[in-house]
Amino acid sequence: MRFYDIIQKKKHGEELTAEEIAFLGKAYVDGEIPDYQMSAFLMAVLWRGMTDREASLLTLAIAESGDTVDLSMFGDRSVDKHSTGGVGDKTTMIVTPIVAAVGGCVAKMSGRGLGHTGGTIDKLESIPGFSTTLTREQFIATVEKVGVAVIGQSGNLAPLDKKLYALRDVTATVDSVPLITSSVMGKKLAAGSHSIVLDVKYGSGAFMSCAEDAVELAKKMVAIGYDRGRQVSAIISSMDTPLGSAVGNSLEVKEAIETLSGRGAPDLTEVCLALATEMVALSMKKDKAEARELCKNALENGSALAKLKEWIAAQGGDANYISNPEKFPVSAYVHEIRASEDGYIYAMDTEQIGISACDLGAGRASKEDEIDHSAGIIILKKTGDKITGGEVIALLHTNKKDAILAAEERYLRALTVSAEPPRHAPVIFGTVRMGKDGEPALTH
Amino acid sequence: MRFYDIIQKKKHGEELTAEEIAFLGKAYVDGEIPDYQMSAFLMAVLWRGMTDREASLLTLAIAESGDTVDLSMFGDRSVDKHSTGGVGDKTTMIVTPIVAAVGGCVAKMSGRGLGHTGGTIDKLESIPGFSTTLTREQFIATVEKVGVAVIGQSGNLAPLDKKLYALRDVTATVDSVPLITSSVMGKKLAAGSHSIVLDVKYGSGAFMSCAEDAVELAKKMVAIGYDRGRQVSAIISSMDTPLGSAVGNSLEVKEAIETLSGRGAPDLTEVCLALATEMVALSMKKDKAEARELCKNALENGSALAKLKEWIAAQGGDANYISNPEKFPVSAYVHEIRASEDGYIYAMDTEQIGISACDLGAGRASKEDEIDHSAGIIILKKTGDKITGGEVIALLHTNKKDAILAAEERYLRALTVSAEPPRHAPVIFGTVRMGKDGEPALTH
Repeated sequence: MRFYDIIQKKKHGEELTAEEIAFLGKAYVDGEIPDYQMSAFLMAVLWRGMTDREASLLTLAIAESGDTVDLSMFGDRSVDKHSTGGVGDKTTMIVTPIVAAVGGCVAKMSGRGLGHTGGTIDKLESIPGFSTTLTREQFIATVEKVGVAVIGQSGNLAPLDKKLYALRDVTATVDSVPLITSSVMGKKLAAGSHSIVLDVKYGSGAFMSCAEDAVELAKKMVAIGYDRGRQVSAIISSMDTPLGSAVGNSLEVKEAIETLSGRGAPDLTEVCLALATEMVALSMKKDKAEARELCKNALENGSALAKLKEWIAAQGGDANYISNPEKFPVSAYVHEIRASEDGYIYAMDTEQIGISACDLGAGRASKEDEIDHSAGIIILKKTGDKITGGEVIALLHTNKKDAILAAEERYLRALTVSAEPPRHAPVIFGTVRMGKDGEPALTH
Repeated sequence: MRFYDIIQKKKHGEELTAEEIAFLGKAYVDGEIPDYQMSAFLMAVLWRGMTDREASLLTLAIAESGDTVDLSMFGDRSVDKHSTGGVGDKTTMIVTPIVAAVGGCVAKMSGRGLGHTGGTIDKLESIPGFSTTLTREQFIATVEKVGVAVIGQSGNLAPLDKKLYALRDVTATVDSVPLITSSVMGKKLAAGSHSIVLDVKYGSGAFMSCAEDAVELAKKMVAIGYDRGRQVSAIISSMDTPLGSAVGNSLEVKEAIETLSGRGAPDLTEVCLALATEMVALSMKKDKAEARELCKNALENGSALAKLKEWIAAQGGDANYISNPEKFPVSAYVHEIRASEDGYIYAMDTEQIGISACDLGAGRASKEDEIDHSAGIIILKKTGDKITGGEVIALLHTNKKDAILAAEERYLRALTVSAEPPRHAPVIFGTVRMGKDGEPALTH
């Protein structure tokens, strides 16, 4: 089989066979297909698309390209979540304790942050003692006992996706529905959970700029999951503003604790409840109303917060930091950003706010950079809020005095201020679930 | 400027600016754009196409990417020809002496053969003493004195095309009209002649499978030439059968001599006369009927053959070989291929016949291979001819006894024999010339 002929076939809009997709996956990981051929193929996929069958086969090729996690000891109870975006997303630290408190079973791998988005592993590591490198036995035992464990991603999980993604990123071939779905679902299949709940974002900075496109993407991912024997639902949520108010590692842990204490920002609480409800409904076979009631109770009666402490302690973290969040080190500089004019925040450029936090020390520009866990941003006024000139609208936390001025300028440039408030858009647009007819459908 | 943004723009079907095309040409030659980005861009060009303006700018970028030949001392009299194909094409050795005999001025660079197609330089070098590496002064002086000189292509002529073509060849991005036109015309602009006559092939093995597509391609090339201040015409000719009867270096020189002696095969003679006529018409400002009359006379009255001898001698070749072609060494083995059945030759796979000649020693599989100038094939029966079982239909010339069996098998497989003759198609479909209205048009 020659990859040249596969490029040619895709270029002409023909459907690839199972053998061809298996060949291209294996040969590319093995270094037998040069990048310059693969990038031509990827652009041909952008052009001609892929059938659902092709996307499902590519998902399988990605899932099986490296290590896979065996969670069969949990039967069909294991459940995972995935978000397609970004800045200030601390939902994993809130959602997984809720699900575990209700009796769910979350055995999760998470990534580190790179560029302007944070990673759950970095956030968790801001808790002294917390270990994200458990042995396989420790990982499974923690899930058995606590109902949740989160570890760093295996270096060899879905290596085909790693190579493809790095190439897509530099060849303008990211924004393809079959390539996005196979990338996300391939990794999720390899990670082993039987149920998967996706948070598909739309808006500025997300793959999908409008809700309708996000729904179509979600339907494809849900269908592929079922095609591969998993249960999948997807929340469609807006990314027009950072979720909650904190951006930065320990700042986000503190916000997660606040939220699990029932004092969370409404948008963040709503997204977390929606995700937890889907996870419980799918993996514990509850109807949606019951699942939501269970999750809401866990949040209100303190059992989810108690579960967070239990989980942190089980992975070696100092749970006193959860009971007493004031123990987290605070940056040497906390700089107030003030509004320069009266009006309404009409829009926020989420990516620029992420870069601003990164510049303050919260992120890494390259894989080798060290993270300052205390650095970041507290957003006090968000899209839709009224502001008055001179009012404090955000706090920059940093140990790098020299970085403050540029970060403040970038933050202010990321805001659009207008005389009239923007049209209110709910944070959750709807949920895509598999229907009884075997077709994924949207419910609001 | 970032090449990523240029890929993105082309992917979205937008027109690139002059600055963007100049940037991509320079940066790719300089090694600043990796192949994996360029191949994604090329596939996006296959998808979205290029406007005439973009193709013209890319042609210019290719022409100016390396050395250019200054033929300004010949004013607007210099004339060049180019063929888009292939096997057994010895037209340069016939056409250029005709044009020179009529008073034209041909300063030409030619290539060597690689793979299944032969190169004019290899063919000329089968004449003892003939030098294809003249100094610039010798080259110009020979054109001045004789009216024709042909040398090997400068190593640094159109390096952008060289890099792009090598990449297109392995990424299934060859068959794009703007990429083909800019490749051909970019090299021809760099080679310096004021008038350019193209032989655009169609049929099996050619870029264009039907005459109509070849006409469209030709119109684009003619328009781009005029856009860049040159005069261009194109003959549209069929490639369904090798031109003439000889394939292989000295065998083709001998066929060229036969043709200039007025004893050429009708198809070959017709294509050569058509090309010479266009070259004379464009570069000497003659109307077509007069130009054709002049060329026909040169062929019939022996002046073109005399010009061939003069030219060969001027470049150091032994002109006795032209007067006495029996002096050319003959291969040790001349193997007769006989028809295995009665019928008509319905089709010939030209590419396979080229490979067969190559296997006999006439070509090189890699750049370093030595050529056997005496090896090749004499085709006695061609498409449309009636054959009888047992009749000799071709002669294989080789010094490699071991190669004969496989070459014979390949040759026979390349033939389609049928009970009925194929529909007769004339070798020349028509000519594309620039019209008085500034639009290229086809005449039959």
